[in-house]
Amino acid sequence: METIPVGLVGVTGYTGMELARLLAVHPSLRLVRATSRAEAGKTLASLYPFLQGFPVGDVAVTAPDAADLAAACRLVFLAVPHGAAMDYAAELLAAGLSVVDLSADFRLADAEVYAAWYGLPHRHPALLPEAVYGLPELYGERIKKTKLTANPGCYPTSVILGLAPALAAGLVETDGIVADSKSGASGAGRKAAVPTLFCEVHDSFRAYNLGRHRHTPEIEQELGKLAGADITVSFNPHLLPIDRGILSTIYTRLTREATVEEIHALYERHYADKPWVRVLPLGRLPETRHVRGTMFCDLGLVVDPRTGRLIVVSAIDNLCRGASGQAVACANLMSGLPVDAGLTLAPMMP
Amino acid sequence: METIPVGLVGVTGYTGMELARLLAVHPSLRLVRATSRAEAGKTLASLYPFLQGFPVGDVAVTAPDAADLAAACRLVFLAVPHGAAMDYAAELLAAGLSVVDLSADFRLADAEVYAAWYGLPHRHPALLPEAVYGLPELYGERIKKTKLTANPGCYPTSVILGLAPALAAGLVETDGIVADSKSGASGAGRKAAVPTLFCEVHDSFRAYNLGRHRHTPEIEQELGKLAGADITVSFNPHLLPIDRGILSTIYTRLTREATVEEIHALYERHYADKPWVRVLPLGRLPETRHVRGTMFCDLGLVVDPRTGRLIVVSAIDNLCRGASGQAVACANLMSGLPVDAGLTLAPMMP
Amino acid sequence: METIPVGLVGVTGYTGMELARLLAVHPSLRLVRATSRAEAGKTLASLYPFLQGFPVGDVAVTAPDAADLAAACRLVFLAVPHGAAMDYAAELLAAGLSVVDLSADFRLADAEVYAAWYGLPHRHPALLPEAVYGLPELYGERIKKTKLTANPGCYPTSVILGLAPALAAGLVETDGIVADSKSGASGAGRKAAVPTLFCEVHDSFRAYNLGRHRHTPEIEQELGKLAGADITVSFNPHLLPIDRGILSTIYTRLTREATVEEIHALYERHYADKPWVRVLPLGRLPETRHVRGTMFCDLGLVVDPRTGRLIVVSAIDNLCRGASGQAVACANLMSGLPVDAGLTLAPMMP
Amino acid sequence: METIPVGLVGVTGYTGMELARLLAVHPSLRLVRATSRAEAGKTLASLYPFLQGFPVGDVAVTAPDAADLAAACRLVFLAVPHGAAMDYAAELLAAGLSVVDLSADFRLADAEVYAAWYGLPHRHPALLPEAVYGLPELYGERIKKTKLTANPGCYPTSVILGLAPALAAGLVETDGIVADSKSGASGAGRKAAVPTLFCEVHDSFRAYNLGRHRHTPEIEQELGKLAGADITVSFNPHLLPIDRGILSTIYTRLTREATVEEIHALYERHYADKPWVRVLPLGRLPETRHVRGTMFCDLGLVVDPRTGRLIVVSAIDNLCRGASGQAVACANLMSGLPVDAGLTLAPMMP
Repeated sequence: METIPVGLVGVTGYTGMELARLLAVHPSLRLVRATSRAEAGKTLASLYPFLQGFPVGDVAVTAPDAADLAAACRLVFLAVPHGAAMDYAAELLAAGLSVVDLSADFRLADAEVYAAWYGLPHRHPALLPEAVYGLPELYGERIKKTKLTANPGCYPTSVILGLAPALAAGLVETDGIVADSKSGASGAGRKAAVPTLFCEVHDSFRAYNLGRHRHTPEIEQELGKLAGADITVSFNPHLLPIDRGILSTIYTRLTREATVEEIHALYERHYADKPWVRVLPLGRLPETRHVRGTMFCDLGLVVDPRTGRLIVVSAIDNLCRGASGQAVACANLMSGLPVDAGLTLAPMMP
Repeated sequence: METIPVGLVGVTGYTGMELARLLAVHPSLRLVRATSRAEAGKTLASLYPFLQGFPVGDVAVTAPDAADLAAACRLVFLAVPHGAAMDYAAELLAAGLSVVDLSADFRLADAEVYAAWYGLPHRHPALLPEAVYGLPELYGERIKKTKLTANPGCYPTSVILGLAPALAAGLVETDGIVADSKSGASGAGRKAAVPTLFCEVHDSFRAYNLGRHRHTPEIEQELGKLAGADITVSFNPHLLPIDRGILSTIYTRLTREATVEEIHALYERHYADKPWVRVLPLGRLPETRHVRGTMFCDLGLVVDPRTGRLIVVSAIDNLCRGASGQAVACANLMSGLPVDAGLTLAPMMP
Repeated sequence: METIPVGLVGVTGYTGMELARLLAVHPSLRLVRATSRAEAGKTLASLYPFLQGFPVGDVAVTAPDAADLAAACRLVFLAVPHGAAMDYAAELLAAGLSVVDLSADFRLADAEVYAAWYGLPHRHPALLPEAVYGLPELYGERIKKTKLTANPGCYPTSVILGLAPALAAGLVETDGIVADSKSGASGAGRKAAVPTLFCEVHDSFRAYNLGRHRHTPEIEQELGKLAGADITVSFNPHLLPIDRGILSTIYTRLTREATVEEIHALYERHYADKPWVRVLPLGRLPETRHVRGTMFCDLGLVVDPRTGRLIVVSAIDNLCRGASGQAVACANLMSGLPVDAGLTLAPMMP
Repeated sequence: METIPVGLVGVTGYTGMELARLLAVHPSLRLVRATSRAEAGKTLASLYPFLQGFPVGDVAVTAPDAADLAAACRLVFLAVPHGAAMDYAAELLAAGLSVVDLSADFRLADAEVYAAWYGLPHRHPALLPEAVYGLPELYGERIKKTKLTANPGCYPTSVILGLAPALAAGLVETDGIVADSKSGASGAGRKAAVPTLFCEVHDSFRAYNLGRHRHTPEIEQELGKLAGADITVSFNPHLLPIDRGILSTIYTRLTREATVEEIHALYERHYADKPWVRVLPLGRLPETRHVRGTMFCDLGLVVDPRTGRLIVVSAIDNLCRGASGQAVACANLMSGLPVDAGLTLAPMMP
């Protein structure tokens, strides 16, 4: 395959680390720039000893410089916080590069919704119509043609893939949906902070930001498109004492009587040509470890006739499928590569 | 205080181990018998090295023998599986002892409901009306007077305490309630089995028995009594990679507009004289570690105006509050002791 | 029992948190002051929600003020970093208070050794002769009479108790000792830092500071006193993905042939009247969970005839026995209370 | 590359699971048989849901049958317990197949040593001279030419690679070596047993089999060959609450004064053309997570001038490098493939 030079802005967080991990063994995307103001001057291998011995480990960390990135790369991953990403994107797009933005800056089509949930105005609203939501199962063809991909949030990936077949088929009510989601601690980021110290997370469990997490409008936007109707979701995240993984338990009410066999067949048909979405056999429920380190989204289906509910359980790896792996899949599509180049990974078990 | 000789039938599971831990430092209840067919002949300290040096560690494990228990004890804890407990209870009650049954055998007032969910007929239905559901906050006065306490299930304890004030006040709809509960692995028992091996549970998360866990009818029975109406609940358990702790996220719909401040005040009033139930300050949510090893039930309250929901988060220690500690509290009441004798424990942090 | 007002300087670290946990249920020591510059103005319960409902939770956190401490307290625990503790100690001692210093500032009798290993001069060397090393099994009588206790380090506690009988009996060579110690993450402190984030510690294991940890001279000082000879130890710490616990595997060479039964008897005699040191039955080895949350030091003994070695395995809880619990034991002795007041705790299992 | 049909006898343990994981994405070795008496009739994907969607997931589990294996496969991995493996090996070799035995049955050259440590006589001593110890860095050329590879034990892999350069150079004394090794729980196997339940391992740490683990003679055999002298090692294993990973801290005494820089250079030269052994930069120490899921063996070097010791810290993944990955490397060599075919994996971080 052709070799395509790519850059990574923001290498010190877990999404940056995961991009480095994936690019270390990618057959075509070659990491040529990795930036961090704080760590500039080191090599990637000195920053991340697990990369010693990989060519990517020899890449020097540099301070971010759009001109340098534009000269050296064809595509750039932005793994910096929301608010910071949008300016990089604008500058790199102007220089003709392709951009995969892992932040939230281009996920919401409506700049006012962005401002309301993220607490700052959008400085490049004109770019919003050009951004494609980077969920390959939903927007694969559009991703191939865009220069700007808004990589989905981790929680939204798990919820949207879990509900898409049911909503598209009108099988569940569009109101009253509850998503009870649980995420591993890598989702909380790599910033030094007491609440994410080992002894604060280990052997414990807690909820946070109930009903007001910023991934809510993103979930509602995409579910609304699938259902063809406005949707208000009760989205509620929790923190798991694991490194990687999101499991969402999604509660819906059926619009009509339906057997779980019928719904299972519907899901299988819906994802027939999407090998990363694995509809589990009836009676099986997902486990986060079964998707660890991969692009899989495992779905388990339960119909509870006592309450008239379809319960969908969805498991992904928040760092790979929910962030950096999905970003690589988008970069693959934007670069004319097979969507799964470098991503045919077996789950790490145990 | 007076010393009361007690027995423990079934010492090899985690509830038996936890009873031994609590009785090791109890000021009045003195463990004089501990039974296990498999481990008979050992001392408790040789079975459980953490008890070396405590008087309770010198207790010899014996095969269960009702006559011997009746002769030696005034009260007996049954920490054996459902189905096995009811016969012990009948025999010991007939001998004049008090019984705290940690199994499900006497929790459900209706023997047919028991048969339907537990898959076996009840052999002592005549005892059911004598059994008191051992939740001190709800039935403290009745527990003082009974000879047979049905110790509540771990999940039901967390859900019932979480919903009691709202249901009693008519604040939430009685239909459509969803309890998404997450439990530590000690809740799965101490039987040798591949699915609960360290490498099968650690660094992973999964749902199980969605909509069909056996604690469902127990939850519905007690919530129905609180609400004065039949209640069907969607109860859905999950397995956490932690030793101890249950966190239940309970989704309800408000019957009327209500502020979270108003609801918080209602909960504080409801539990004003129940020091083990801690209604957290507004803005705080429970964490399982904050109740580790104790009788506390921590409650966090969220009103989501977007969806008209009251979300209650409830955290307990499944082994202490959800099983053996609650059993000790019941034994205290049945023995004329203060409910918190031996149970004034500070949470283990971290 | 009498009530003794005590203060705690430095409440935000794990040793401060553990002191608060222990004092919450102590029958005689009543916490009346808790200081932290950063958290002044909060109550202890708002800082540590697990304390809600305990009287100690109502204590207000204040900025440290020696005059106020002196007026309110009879004894003060110093849970601040080395270097900072010595000035507090001097000031409080001058005001007539008793001081238990959890830092390293008064552990080393030789101010030059302190300066060499801690990288700063000792500002109060005149106090060093007054300080008693706070290991109750070794110095219980002297602790009762001092106003200044130097609370031992966590690693030294595990190593010294593990070797004391063998060294005192001349059973093992004084050179060539290796202590391979493994500590839970609470030993690394509660400072916000990337290397102790959950995702950096969980599911991993590493060594650090091999041969140059600051607890080395403290171990050598005490072992030397026991052996009556200078001792150089190879002390090597590791970081475990657990909250609490230290397990030290200590490698010695026997000075003569000896059976493990003989050595076991020697250890049992040595610790016959020290109930916190539990010499395990032959064939048993310690586990950190068996001492979790307590003052126990569990010792396992192995003789390897192939290599002529006595291997001692020693397990303690680094926060309780290795820091705050030991500090409470010292405070008990200094206050005329039984050494185990408030410390008759059963291990948290599982 | 050519496709080579291979079989796997014993698929239900963690080494069998890991072989399935690695073969799922191997470019040349195609798994065509997987055997288990207990699970016969299932597909691999139904046994191991993480394999759903991989061709290897469709392989049917069958009862072991040497004739069938011989007809279908060119090479067979034996992932059954010691004692059981040797007969399979003899039968398959007689049928002309190549065999990689993951058990201990062919690791020890001396059948009497085997009998002494494993407690049973060797039934095929005539095969012992044909077996090659499957450590590619030491015996790569011989592995290419053999039909029978004795795959090294996990602990020996970590200790031998850690000491080889120092022993070969005569840099360290051959007596008095201590290896303090710590292993993740997958090393304890996948058998249902109480001591490896989650709640028995999690948040705890313990030593076991000090001085008498069965990997001892294997370590001594290989170190002896490297040193050209008999070596007696004090080898002491511990159980870590992690899934994967071994970290060995190896204590030696230098035969002469040597700087750590000099020793570092020696190690780098020794492993210059062995990319899986990563000699870390001075000042760095290995962490098990940095090798997770891979063939890397990370080595850290410390010279302690106070005690005259060279301390080597060695980290591997016990399942991949310490078992199944090493088996695949051997199979690659035995099949004429590059040693790293299918094994160019990036560590799973975090």
